[in-house]
Amino acid sequence: MEEFILKTMCDNVRAASPLVHSITNYVTVNDCANALLACGASPIMSDEPEDVGDIASICNALTINIGTLNAQTIESMLIAGRRSAELEHPIVLDPVGAGASALRTRTAADLLEQLPITVIRGNMSEVKALAGETTATRGVDACPDDAVTEENLEANAAFARALAEKTKAVVAITGAIDLVTAGEAAFAISNGTPLQERITGAGCMLSCMCAAYAAANPDHRVEAQAAAVIAMGLAGQIAERRMASEDGNGSFRTYLLDALYLMDGTGLEAGALVRML
Amino acid sequence: MEEFILKTMCDNVRAASPLVHSITNYVTVNDCANALLACGASPIMSDEPEDVGDIASICNALTINIGTLNAQTIESMLIAGRRSAELEHPIVLDPVGAGASALRTRTAADLLEQLPITVIRGNMSEVKALAGETTATRGVDACPDDAVTEENLEANAAFARALAEKTKAVVAITGAIDLVTAGEAAFAISNGTPLQERITGAGCMLSCMCAAYAAANPDHRVEAQAAAVIAMGLAGQIAERRMASEDGNGSFRTYLLDALYLMDGTGLEAGALVRML
Amino acid sequence: MEEFILKTMCDNVRAASPLVHSITNYVTVNDCANALLACGASPIMSDEPEDVGDIASICNALTINIGTLNAQTIESMLIAGRRSAELEHPIVLDPVGAGASALRTRTAADLLEQLPITVIRGNMSEVKALAGETTATRGVDACPDDAVTEENLEANAAFARALAEKTKAVVAITGAIDLVTAGEAAFAISNGTPLQERITGAGCMLSCMCAAYAAANPDHRVEAQAAAVIAMGLAGQIAERRMASEDGNGSFRTYLLDALYLMDGTGLEAGALVRML
Repeated sequence: MEEFILKTMCDNVRAASPLVHSITNYVTVNDCANALLACGASPIMSDEPEDVGDIASICNALTINIGTLNAQTIESMLIAGRRSAELEHPIVLDPVGAGASALRTRTAADLLEQLPITVIRGNMSEVKALAGETTATRGVDACPDDAVTEENLEANAAFARALAEKTKAVVAITGAIDLVTAGEAAFAISNGTPLQERITGAGCMLSCMCAAYAAANPDHRVEAQAAAVIAMGLAGQIAERRMASEDGNGSFRTYLLDALYLMDGTGLEAGALVRML
Repeated sequence: MEEFILKTMCDNVRAASPLVHSITNYVTVNDCANALLACGASPIMSDEPEDVGDIASICNALTINIGTLNAQTIESMLIAGRRSAELEHPIVLDPVGAGASALRTRTAADLLEQLPITVIRGNMSEVKALAGETTATRGVDACPDDAVTEENLEANAAFARALAEKTKAVVAITGAIDLVTAGEAAFAISNGTPLQERITGAGCMLSCMCAAYAAANPDHRVEAQAAAVIAMGLAGQIAERRMASEDGNGSFRTYLLDALYLMDGTGLEAGALVRML
Repeated sequence: MEEFILKTMCDNVRAASPLVHSITNYVTVNDCANALLACGASPIMSDEPEDVGDIASICNALTINIGTLNAQTIESMLIAGRRSAELEHPIVLDPVGAGASALRTRTAADLLEQLPITVIRGNMSEVKALAGETTATRGVDACPDDAVTEENLEANAAFARALAEKTKAVVAITGAIDLVTAGEAAFAISNGTPLQERITGAGCMLSCMCAAYAAANPDHRVEAQAAAVIAMGLAGQIAERRMASEDGNGSFRTYLLDALYLMDGTGLEAGALVRML
């Protein structure tokens, strides 16, 4: 990926200020809204079946996050997804906790089957569950066995590529090393810090940002997702460097939003730790 | 408005510590609760139809915010509203996203028709939609075309006055210049900062505070609302002055609550940027 | 309580990193998740009847908080509770607002009757309502009349002991002086600061931590709960000492999480203000 593209991906979000409809969980929804505002987009949340069609229509992208799904919001996800598909809006699927319950695994698979998902964004355990592979589960966290390392990087990239080819979606799997691919080129991203796992919502925020980046960069579908993933990881690193001796995950959460808020394309380009596989 | 009244409006909230029942969206609800605590009131949230009548009964005021409305919470809004009306408690309506979907526009209008709303608090696009005017929509943000400026101030004040007269509610429209009126005198308030639009929830928090100010100041219905609007805008300015080079919207959100927490009547009076139209 | 036990109770949570299923209110749920992460546990939230059985199965403990209960989540509380009971997982009940509405009072009593509750954690007004005593209500806050003081300490401890004996649960009543008992020994804890009442969620966060402490310390059911209560109070004190002149409840909330994040058994032991009654 030429670096000037990364820069442009980020700046385009602030220039376009896409409106992102998020049907997401009530645990991290406030952080999701503030992360969208931080990166230059605008949030709207709506999960009532009678409301979501209209809201999807006025937005530029949709994020579907199954973190606290229920019967009614699943219906809303499908309605909003179908309307977004008609309008050719990008749709991000975050299969939170897929593998942790039958309902989550089945719902994530149904959404992927019934909607033209543009981006799948999850941790490796969730994405494996979405792909039909059996894994152990640590709830909404990735299993240690599923960690992407230098040793298993190629094998995991092959898995991601195959899923991308099968689903026609960009696959963005985040962890110690992040993988982003649309089926051929795969980006391996080393930005980020373990502190991101010590707050709730870093993944949910990223999935919303992925929708904003997709909406603002329609001609660079893979690069846009790589840029979003780098942006979150780099913000984590910037936030970590700011941590003082009395700071914990409360302050880290604030600093992470601050870093997203202050990030521009030039900063993203300078801090990106990305290579092509 | 004589300034000593502004001071009193603010101090009365801390003295009375009203209990405010909020049926509000799950995006900003935590900030709403903390904003109520910051200004000296106490929050309770409840949106189950079987629960809201009892909760409304023990409270001093009700806020209805349609930011993430659904079929069940709409029913709860009406039940809580009717009970609050019987008890002559003030009711604030925040028509979040009116104009952005048919359900929101219709629900806001229904609530206004069926309940004796004491205060309407929204941005200009939402309030215009509530008044039945057709506008463009930017979701939960005001449309740029609807911005209140010095040039269109009188025309917008005339709109607010007419709506207040028609609905018998105090109308509080917030933006770059805020307008507060009960139909004759109109207050134009220049407190606030654009940073308030870079976090989610500044409007939702204000609507909850409007309910607290109404409950604590029953004899000054317009002045109380002007004071609440000034308090939020002034807190935004105080928070903005505190921003350091690494701070973004994460820190701004924290500083805003801090400024509300430390505000007293004397500070409010000293910082108020208000004039009568 | 020997002090080395306190130390161990805290360190065991970080060592075991229990997965805690929380069915809780949408007001403070984000803080609950971050508090669990801060103390070394992992959060999962799920409240859909079809989902909660599976989620409870993969977790180590369950928290039930009725702060924004509704018909559907009440059903989920019972399903998750029964599954957790089958698996002999600890279950914490936080009867938020019991006494403030008929539905809350009845639901709290039903949950206590139908499930083998391991820990009851609430303020004195809520716990009295749960025990069938009639009290005045201040919504989700304790009534001033129900404050535990040196003067009424023995009488309140007797009430807590009787409830613990009747229900077979550890009773943890928090306020200016906290009481923790399983029916014989009662711990009176003087950690904490009034600032904890100026943010929303300190009690909810504690209830989630109680579940984590119970899961990580199965052989010390009372001491584990005393340690959790001390941890929250001590974190409040540490956060209060960090408050600067411009800080309010926004910063306090951040500092509280930070203090929980940095706390270890040694710090807990050194700061504990606890005596046996």
